[in-house]
Amino acid sequence: MIWLECDYTCGAHPAVLKHLVETNGENTPGYGLDPHCENAAQMIRELCQAPDAAVHFLVGGTQANLTVISAALRPHQGVVSADTGHIFAHESGAIEATGHKVLTVPTPDGKLTATQIDALCQAHADDPTAEHTVQPGMVYLSNPTELGTIYTLAELEAIREVTRRRDLLLFLDGARLGCALAVEDSGVTLPALARLCDVFYIGGTKMGALFGEALVFPDPALARDFRYLIKQKGGMFAKGRLLGVQFEALLSDGLYFQIGRHAVELAMELRRVLEEKGYPMPVPSPTNQQFPILPNEVLKRLEGVCTWSHMSCPDPEHTQVRFCTSWATTREEIEKVAALL
Amino acid sequence: MIWLECDYTCGAHPAVLKHLVETNGENTPGYGLDPHCENAAQMIRELCQAPDAAVHFLVGGTQANLTVISAALRPHQGVVSADTGHIFAHESGAIEATGHKVLTVPTPDGKLTATQIDALCQAHADDPTAEHTVQPGMVYLSNPTELGTIYTLAELEAIREVTRRRDLLLFLDGARLGCALAVEDSGVTLPALARLCDVFYIGGTKMGALFGEALVFPDPALARDFRYLIKQKGGMFAKGRLLGVQFEALLSDGLYFQIGRHAVELAMELRRVLEEKGYPMPVPSPTNQQFPILPNEVLKRLEGVCTWSHMSCPDPEHTQVRFCTSWATTREEIEKVAALL
Amino acid sequence: MIWLECDYTCGAHPAVLKHLVETNGENTPGYGLDPHCENAAQMIRELCQAPDAAVHFLVGGTQANLTVISAALRPHQGVVSADTGHIFAHESGAIEATGHKVLTVPTPDGKLTATQIDALCQAHADDPTAEHTVQPGMVYLSNPTELGTIYTLAELEAIREVTRRRDLLLFLDGARLGCALAVEDSGVTLPALARLCDVFYIGGTKMGALFGEALVFPDPALARDFRYLIKQKGGMFAKGRLLGVQFEALLSDGLYFQIGRHAVELAMELRRVLEEKGYPMPVPSPTNQQFPILPNEVLKRLEGVCTWSHMSCPDPEHTQVRFCTSWATTREEIEKVAALL
Amino acid sequence: MIWLECDYTCGAHPAVLKHLVETNGENTPGYGLDPHCENAAQMIRELCQAPDAAVHFLVGGTQANLTVISAALRPHQGVVSADTGHIFAHESGAIEATGHKVLTVPTPDGKLTATQIDALCQAHADDPTAEHTVQPGMVYLSNPTELGTIYTLAELEAIREVTRRRDLLLFLDGARLGCALAVEDSGVTLPALARLCDVFYIGGTKMGALFGEALVFPDPALARDFRYLIKQKGGMFAKGRLLGVQFEALLSDGLYFQIGRHAVELAMELRRVLEEKGYPMPVPSPTNQQFPILPNEVLKRLEGVCTWSHMSCPDPEHTQVRFCTSWATTREEIEKVAALL
Repeated sequence: MIWLECDYTCGAHPAVLKHLVETNGENTPGYGLDPHCENAAQMIRELCQAPDAAVHFLVGGTQANLTVISAALRPHQGVVSADTGHIFAHESGAIEATGHKVLTVPTPDGKLTATQIDALCQAHADDPTAEHTVQPGMVYLSNPTELGTIYTLAELEAIREVTRRRDLLLFLDGARLGCALAVEDSGVTLPALARLCDVFYIGGTKMGALFGEALVFPDPALARDFRYLIKQKGGMFAKGRLLGVQFEALLSDGLYFQIGRHAVELAMELRRVLEEKGYPMPVPSPTNQQFPILPNEVLKRLEGVCTWSHMSCPDPEHTQVRFCTSWATTREEIEKVAALL
Repeated sequence: MIWLECDYTCGAHPAVLKHLVETNGENTPGYGLDPHCENAAQMIRELCQAPDAAVHFLVGGTQANLTVISAALRPHQGVVSADTGHIFAHESGAIEATGHKVLTVPTPDGKLTATQIDALCQAHADDPTAEHTVQPGMVYLSNPTELGTIYTLAELEAIREVTRRRDLLLFLDGARLGCALAVEDSGVTLPALARLCDVFYIGGTKMGALFGEALVFPDPALARDFRYLIKQKGGMFAKGRLLGVQFEALLSDGLYFQIGRHAVELAMELRRVLEEKGYPMPVPSPTNQQFPILPNEVLKRLEGVCTWSHMSCPDPEHTQVRFCTSWATTREEIEKVAALL
Repeated sequence: MIWLECDYTCGAHPAVLKHLVETNGENTPGYGLDPHCENAAQMIRELCQAPDAAVHFLVGGTQANLTVISAALRPHQGVVSADTGHIFAHESGAIEATGHKVLTVPTPDGKLTATQIDALCQAHADDPTAEHTVQPGMVYLSNPTELGTIYTLAELEAIREVTRRRDLLLFLDGARLGCALAVEDSGVTLPALARLCDVFYIGGTKMGALFGEALVFPDPALARDFRYLIKQKGGMFAKGRLLGVQFEALLSDGLYFQIGRHAVELAMELRRVLEEKGYPMPVPSPTNQQFPILPNEVLKRLEGVCTWSHMSCPDPEHTQVRFCTSWATTREEIEKVAALL
Repeated sequence: MIWLECDYTCGAHPAVLKHLVETNGENTPGYGLDPHCENAAQMIRELCQAPDAAVHFLVGGTQANLTVISAALRPHQGVVSADTGHIFAHESGAIEATGHKVLTVPTPDGKLTATQIDALCQAHADDPTAEHTVQPGMVYLSNPTELGTIYTLAELEAIREVTRRRDLLLFLDGARLGCALAVEDSGVTLPALARLCDVFYIGGTKMGALFGEALVFPDPALARDFRYLIKQKGGMFAKGRLLGVQFEALLSDGLYFQIGRHAVELAMELRRVLEEKGYPMPVPSPTNQQFPILPNEVLKRLEGVCTWSHMSCPDPEHTQVRFCTSWATTREEIEKVAALL
């Protein structure tokens, strides 16, 4: 079976596993106060060209999102998100459970625009009863988005300008960041993110780690007392070094970027075939998630050969699905699936 | 260096690591809906003689505590705990952050008694302004406690009787449960816990896993919709099978119990020497944590040889410390430390 | 100046004030445990033909909404509301601050339909990742809605059928309930509400009281321990009898219904004139709030004569406003305004 | 019957009621944005000699406490309180429901000391696992305390010094502030409170109003966006002017201070008699609450004559009770009770 339903069905990339195995017998202090976490943090500071950045490792995306957002906002503030945003659509109300509303903006492609954010803030400012509504306090972007799309450098810069002017924090969820960074013409790099975001994360779980996300606060002042919050929200690992160890492996020898390029390359190959066959892909994605609308008979052929995620049924004879590549996907697998499309 | 500061300084037990490595290349569905989790859950149901039990795997103790407590209580209810209880003393306000007060009872040895719980409930019932106070809704025990002490079967049965009568849920935190189970004359077994508790967990993090706790709800009705809550609180792992895989290893061939016995045996050896030397141990612990009061000059001798946790300074020339053994501690290490006491 | 901006600019109806004055010197127990609250509760039980109902008095609408919703839902559940619903649009995130998401449905007229609620529940049931989303647990209606529209008996019965079948609680916000009850052909009466709703309130603040809403739980089981929650959320008045005293006055001699009829009658007179003049009213309201789109020059004429609430600017030369009548509005005032339209 | 069980059994002081009646027919904007609130706020600024102070009116004490504390603290911070403090002992977990722990210090007399606060902070600072505990962020005092005791100016200044040095906010609950201010030799005045506290309130509910507390933030920066929080927590009155109107009456012609003096004077008369009779009063209170231990036979004589609050039963033949005087208590009433002691 070829697993294309998502990018977390397999275990860790062999290099990550190897490093976990070779460090398993070490003894270190707990809770992330160990040399591996410090080393991985330093590697991140260098890759981001952000020498003062505070770096914290979280166990997963929802944990990272809820901890960051609840740490940063005052009680009357909400976080602005695309209505497709993971925090609004797929986290079981995690943000609301910390007391904060997600203020949504509809998007055709999963991407917020600077104009939309500005308009939402202006509407709040113009509202004579603004105090009876939730104050926007932060903008949440995911890059790649949940639809596989990515932000260009110019788009992020425009969003940054609005968030500065409107006194909003800018938070970028990089659960699949390696795939966004693999699209070279976007202009987005780690140093650019460190320059533009108040906080963002370099996702591990979906990029070859067993689990883990590396949060980067370019200005460490924003991370004040952040470890209290990690602990309070249940995200502080006793054997915290597991996170540092995995990121040491991912960030060595460019492995993280290579994993992103590998997944995107295979996804582009799949996309090429899907386009050739003329299957509609309403939102073209340049990253590792592809969302074609396929005839049900094609899906029937794929049954037992590969897996996919069901998205929706636009009509009785077609189904929109998601195919997702990862570090573990092989060219042979893609070719085998392509042959059946 | 001999690491005795806590039981989570080293990696995973070799058998756990081996199983992680050998299953690494598999592809499985995410979020704990995989064959390894189901298999481990079934092993737990059998060990507990609780065929209907709902079993859920959580990533760590604080996460387990806050998820269980917030899932079970109504907003006006609190959880009764010893004032040494982990949820009160060492979780950065995790329980309060979910909206619930921890109602504490002072204890000399970390153990709640049935009488104390009953008295607290009676005081609430007698209070003409009870509605202006927090209603007790659950009892939280840790076994072993944070002071290394354990409950006997008779003590747990008495507590069970009170909680039933007072309409309280009984929740037992078994972060180090294997060490409690290793003390045979306590009479406490997994089937006994399944009979007496509404929910309890079999701790993995401190018992040889990389991370993970296995929550057991003997009556599955209490776990209704529990997966929503795991997700909402950020504890649902994308690669959820990692938890199942580790518990498969821990629960095979009695490894979990053997790890408990090993750690307790070495701790008893250390305790024997400490007692011989006449060092006070205010609360005698039959498990893997020992809390002697040592002359500072003894600690000076131990510096660079072993690590320990600092507890308090009863006087300028003495220090109470914690020594903690684990699956990774060796007899030779204990002998080496003992020789310096 | 004629005050039409909302229905809470004036003090209490004279009969309410009179009863407050004549009982001022009494001494009674605090916190709502007094004869006036009990008497008012009994009057409500009789008017609702709900002899077992639990009745609680809250100080205001937002307080009532957040207390009811947080008391009723489990942590992973949300409340379904029209996107114009007060709890979503105008309570500063009060519901989210208690941990719960508001699940919205777009409506042209402020009214949820049974079909919409059913579809939302079906979509949740069909979602293979439902556990990653918020579970619908309650439906929130306001009647009249924020747009002045009302539900017919048939509509409420249809909603009731869906909520029963989908295991949802039905909560009706009656901040202006007296105005809905004044529209006779709706078929909605207090006994009908007590039969159809799990909880609803008879609003006082906007219906002639100084403040206060009377919550009715026809089945008292749902109100278990509700006084703990009133206290916890800060809504329990020390001099709680003030609420009972006001509702005694409002509910005596049909005053509450008479206030509703008075306000609606004058609003209908205003509407008649607005319609005659041909001013668009996109959502026709049969109650005390009217939302015409007026030429700015008309508003200019009204400046200094009456007040209104600004709604929006559909184009540079027109403004949509809200006119709101109350017990304190007089026929002469409406005639004076009408003459200037 | 003479009502001495608490100071909120009667209605409003006649002057307050009179002002409510005479302003009842006015129309004003809602939500506290009216001339009466602004006027009362200005009176308070002048009485406090705090020209820049932000003043907000809340409907009751629990509402004020939970709104202030949740507005001021970050999620990982707690509020330090005496274990007799209202927020810990009698608010149904209101503070925890907003996510914050109350960090308690035991006191014999209801009063926190600067030394205790300093020691608590030092213990936190010295704790190597401080991040696993709740960070002190604010100190909560009540003055008078729940035991009737009061702080001297020197005590408050010492506490102020510690809170500044330890970076804690200082919040003073003045539910019965008028009674503390009536004790002249304490040295505490409104200007002193405005100089020493970050936020405090001038209680109305227990000092002759129907309801209402006036929050004073001497430095308005701390009150940033506070109205959003009042609304979110359900404490914003539609007819908000009711609060301003009542404080206008209370603060005119020294009425507030006179009410305090009256209540304290009668309580001192009662205390004199209790002392003469030799009844123990474990914590001597200089304000309007007196806590004598009486023989049960004395209480039997008082039955049907006066009411009191039950505190505890130190032995089978004695009961500790609370007698509470208010603006409505008369000298004749006290004499009648005294004669039966």
